[in-house]
Amino acid sequence: MKKDERLDCDLIICGSHVVTMNNEEQVLEDAAVVVKQGKIVEIGTKNTIINKYKPKELLDVAESIVMPGLINTHTHVAMTLFRGLADDTDLGSFLDKVWAAETHYITPESVAVGANLGFAEMLLAGVTCCADMYWFPESTAQCAKQIGIRLFAGEVFVDFLGADHISQWDTRIERAENFIATYKNDDLVTPILCPHATYTVSEEHLAALAALAKKHDVAVHIHASEAEFEMDTVKKITGKTPIQVLESAGLLNEKTWIAHGVHVSKEDRDTLLMRNTKVAHCPASNMKLASGTAPVCDYLNESITVSLGTDGPSSSNDLNPWMAMRLASLLQKNSNNDALALPAKEVVKMATRYGANTLSVSDKIGQLAPGMLADIIVVQCNKPHAQPIYDVYSHLVYSARPDDVHSVVVNGKVVVNNRRLVNLNLHEVSKKMHEIKTAIYSNISTPAQG
Amino acid sequence: MKKDERLDCDLIICGSHVVTMNNEEQVLEDAAVVVKQGKIVEIGTKNTIINKYKPKELLDVAESIVMPGLINTHTHVAMTLFRGLADDTDLGSFLDKVWAAETHYITPESVAVGANLGFAEMLLAGVTCCADMYWFPESTAQCAKQIGIRLFAGEVFVDFLGADHISQWDTRIERAENFIATYKNDDLVTPILCPHATYTVSEEHLAALAALAKKHDVAVHIHASEAEFEMDTVKKITGKTPIQVLESAGLLNEKTWIAHGVHVSKEDRDTLLMRNTKVAHCPASNMKLASGTAPVCDYLNESITVSLGTDGPSSSNDLNPWMAMRLASLLQKNSNNDALALPAKEVVKMATRYGANTLSVSDKIGQLAPGMLADIIVVQCNKPHAQPIYDVYSHLVYSARPDDVHSVVVNGKVVVNNRRLVNLNLHEVSKKMHEIKTAIYSNISTPAQG
Repeated sequence: MKKDERLDCDLIICGSHVVTMNNEEQVLEDAAVVVKQGKIVEIGTKNTIINKYKPKELLDVAESIVMPGLINTHTHVAMTLFRGLADDTDLGSFLDKVWAAETHYITPESVAVGANLGFAEMLLAGVTCCADMYWFPESTAQCAKQIGIRLFAGEVFVDFLGADHISQWDTRIERAENFIATYKNDDLVTPILCPHATYTVSEEHLAALAALAKKHDVAVHIHASEAEFEMDTVKKITGKTPIQVLESAGLLNEKTWIAHGVHVSKEDRDTLLMRNTKVAHCPASNMKLASGTAPVCDYLNESITVSLGTDGPSSSNDLNPWMAMRLASLLQKNSNNDALALPAKEVVKMATRYGANTLSVSDKIGQLAPGMLADIIVVQCNKPHAQPIYDVYSHLVYSARPDDVHSVVVNGKVVVNNRRLVNLNLHEVSKKMHEIKTAIYSNISTPAQG
Repeated sequence: MKKDERLDCDLIICGSHVVTMNNEEQVLEDAAVVVKQGKIVEIGTKNTIINKYKPKELLDVAESIVMPGLINTHTHVAMTLFRGLADDTDLGSFLDKVWAAETHYITPESVAVGANLGFAEMLLAGVTCCADMYWFPESTAQCAKQIGIRLFAGEVFVDFLGADHISQWDTRIERAENFIATYKNDDLVTPILCPHATYTVSEEHLAALAALAKKHDVAVHIHASEAEFEMDTVKKITGKTPIQVLESAGLLNEKTWIAHGVHVSKEDRDTLLMRNTKVAHCPASNMKLASGTAPVCDYLNESITVSLGTDGPSSSNDLNPWMAMRLASLLQKNSNNDALALPAKEVVKMATRYGANTLSVSDKIGQLAPGMLADIIVVQCNKPHAQPIYDVYSHLVYSARPDDVHSVVVNGKVVVNNRRLVNLNLHEVSKKMHEIKTAIYSNISTPAQG
């Protein structure tokens, strides 16, 4: 028997199509991706790869698309706790209702339950990396590391008493610095700062956070220009637009991204472009809350980076990246009265490359190429809705669904295998979620006792 | 041992919630539906029902919503053949490309392959009844009966050579009457007439079809007021709107429904209301083809019946009723700048009761009530995205997905059980679809040989 002289590797992932999203936008048929020590080593035809490498583990799913993991650049993952609690209402009333529930039910423990459920939903849907903004980020970060999803998170800043019952600004700064110190060199969690918005944090405090971000070289993730009431409020307080406030505060730079960016004039967009600030577009939330339609085609035409976010599950109401992709395209076609607007391939870029660019990690994730971190998903195409496929990008944007995701790899580790989470007992999480929901529900159902 | 004195029945379906969509809009917890000889016999608490009836078959899925099957009032099911063939293009170019492919590849056999795949997709997603419009309806009808889905279909009429290679008007009339004769008393297939549109069929021919429909007491299903180019074309030819043409031709009555109804003025809507003509709203298709935004809230406020359609899978690109539900609500909220527009419960009505009303069968389907035909689905709520549930309607519209559908019953027969089709070998269909797709693809990829 001939000695096996193939090279060692940790994992080989085969697909009938490998959609690389690399600089050349290569799509390879009957191809494979080689993973070693958490990184992509080589991509080639399946035959070549199988003859050259001997893997410890093999993922070879028939009729599948192998592609970069999807990147969700704006969410509040633990808000699964309040999914469907305040629907068919406007943003103002929505915030009133949800913030009231948060005040009573948000603890480090409940955040962990919500985050676990949300991460489970995202990983099963092919999200390998997400940017969060929520209370008790230390709970969320621990859950992310346990389940194995890449996370950008950090302290949330507001000028009033938060749902975490912290009122002192200095306490928040201290917590932020502790979080940064803990996760500065983590392989899954990247620490950031999350000031809530320009109507909830003063310009003075925003300027202080700009300095803090610079001091620690961390990114900033903030809501901006989401809804008309926000535009009016900020105008009344400051006489400016949210983008102008952020610019004055020194918060706009290449490491900052704004969530929503719906009501953004040409002048505001010029500012974003000049500062190389990125935008997380959240179509499901914007539509459901009637916040308006973000000028996504304008952003892209003007070379402003736009990525996709699901927003939190209490507004959108899920963490479904395929819905975000499809809605992004459909909404631009509808609002621009142009069926050619935001074509499928551009949408897939928003969910991958542009997501990585938004988070300033385009040298690490967002495409399949040698040297990149191995954040990879396998999308199976065997169900009726996935047949036939004339164009892979069209399929991914206009037909694919969360339940098509067969396997998910983050940092070279298989975290979803055959549609099952490797690192989480979902039954336990569901049980805890049910208990919290029952308490919240009985409270809102009998407001007199609330 | 005590003798079992319970009443015989064919099937009992239990759910943690039974969403009846009946006249009282009852939602029962821990309840069950009793089915005998294809009809619903009783609905009550699970304990009561189990003690009273002895079923031949029991569907008891934990954490599930039992509800009426979803009704898709506009599709071209066999166009799964061309799913994704002509994306990111406007309606005119789309029709050019798809019609060219149809001319070469549409046969009774290929229609059967496309219909089987499409019915599989719909049944697995919880659609128990659909209204089709496509060439060779006899192929589609046979597939529907075999797989077990309720179907409204019939001859398609155009004034030019159809993709079925029929050019003679009289031949179409003869085929239509044969189809009606064959299916007049069928328990699954209801024969209808399907003139394509007012820009493809002359007013004289439309008037002849009005007479034919009256003669046989069958319904009429026609595209109307979908896109701006259609409005312009019809205006040029007739000086009228499509609705005005249909009114002149005598085609508007309570048994007619129009697909799309996007560009419909108040005057046109008054005509629809006066004639009690119904509308099939297809948001996924309208958005993707940038056809415009149908005035759904106006229709509903003015008491015009609006139901939901997926449109054909070459335009929308799937046959996903949950997408149609969610998009219907999101699009109205966005276009009306009102987060309260088209709330969840109203959307569920559109997909059930209003669907039945559109097809003039509200005495038979569209709600769970004793005496109704047993078209019932079981929606499982155990996945992360389905937790928690504060409001069942919100869940169904803003979170639920096709893969949540666990079981499907049509006419009292279980046709999907634990997410598997009972009556179709999907593998065989996929194989045939792949062959046809390969032929089409090689043809469009090398147009010189086309």
